[in-house]
Amino acid sequence: MHKIKEKIRTVPNWPKQGVMFRDVTTLLKDAHGFKHMIDLLYERYKDSKVDVVIGIEARGFITGSVLAHRLNVGFVPIRKKGKLPAEVVSEEYDLEYGTDKIEIHKDAIRPEDKVLIFDDLIATGGTALASCKLVEKLGGNILECSFIVDLPELGGRKKLEKAGYKVFSLVDFEGE
Amino acid sequence: MHKIKEKIRTVPNWPKQGVMFRDVTTLLKDAHGFKHMIDLLYERYKDSKVDVVIGIEARGFITGSVLAHRLNVGFVPIRKKGKLPAEVVSEEYDLEYGTDKIEIHKDAIRPEDKVLIFDDLIATGGTALASCKLVEKLGGNILECSFIVDLPELGGRKKLEKAGYKVFSLVDFEGE
Repeated sequence: MHKIKEKIRTVPNWPKQGVMFRDVTTLLKDAHGFKHMIDLLYERYKDSKVDVVIGIEARGFITGSVLAHRLNVGFVPIRKKGKLPAEVVSEEYDLEYGTDKIEIHKDAIRPEDKVLIFDDLIATGGTALASCKLVEKLGGNILECSFIVDLPELGGRKKLEKAGYKVFSLVDFEGE
Repeated sequence: MHKIKEKIRTVPNWPKQGVMFRDVTTLLKDAHGFKHMIDLLYERYKDSKVDVVIGIEARGFITGSVLAHRLNVGFVPIRKKGKLPAEVVSEEYDLEYGTDKIEIHKDAIRPEDKVLIFDDLIATGGTALASCKLVEKLGGNILECSFIVDLPELGGRKKLEKAGYKVFSLVDFEGE
């Protein structure tokens, strides 16, 4: 996975002082890196009988939709509140200060669908956990939560695993 | 294209009274519809020697990134202001009331790159036109602006064509 990792740019002190932001846009714009990443994800899930891939707004849309296409299944977006036009179910999650909501269309998942949840990065895991709950509200089964980047120090993976969900990431950044 | 069109849901009076919102999420979640759409777009551009596909935040990320993957090129996001972590160039565009800004990373495009711009829908064409200007600020050449849905009555296609850009859409909704 080191070829993936070396193509991810680190932007120090963004969006605020002290944060090392892991920027996957440098991986996505690199045709070889982008293809290599998708191939790795495809290999992991090609025999998993995934019914639908969910991407979490906004950066999760990018790789999530490509993975859906490669697996030859549908793609479903989970969006911030007020962005989806038809009937939705909502789930609250914690921000650093206060809370926010994410939503999914009520008719986006069929009961018993095997669902792969995708985002580009897991930090505290708040939106990923809320996404799992949304899918379960609609009767779907979570196959796994999948990410390009894990930041283990922020505890998101542990939070998801403690709640009973499988977690996968292509790379992680720890103590760097 | 009628198979594409019939899978797009119309939500009346969203986001406000009198608007017929064309919702592509019903197309994207349909494995066959999603694949058919991507195949049509791939056929159109496979011999065009595209260097990079740009997707406009947020819904343009979904199909734009899949098209980039199929064409075996890199994907570059154009985002709303303040979302990209590294050095950007910005371009203003008009909203119904006031203005807003979109941005692209300065190092996302190389001079003379042949760029395909993708969004899910063209209405008034404001963000698409601003996206073309961003790409040109970085020295890129616009191959075409490509959309799933065109709403011709809102004048976006004419605006882009008048400015010298090629425009393609898979389907249009007019007087419906």
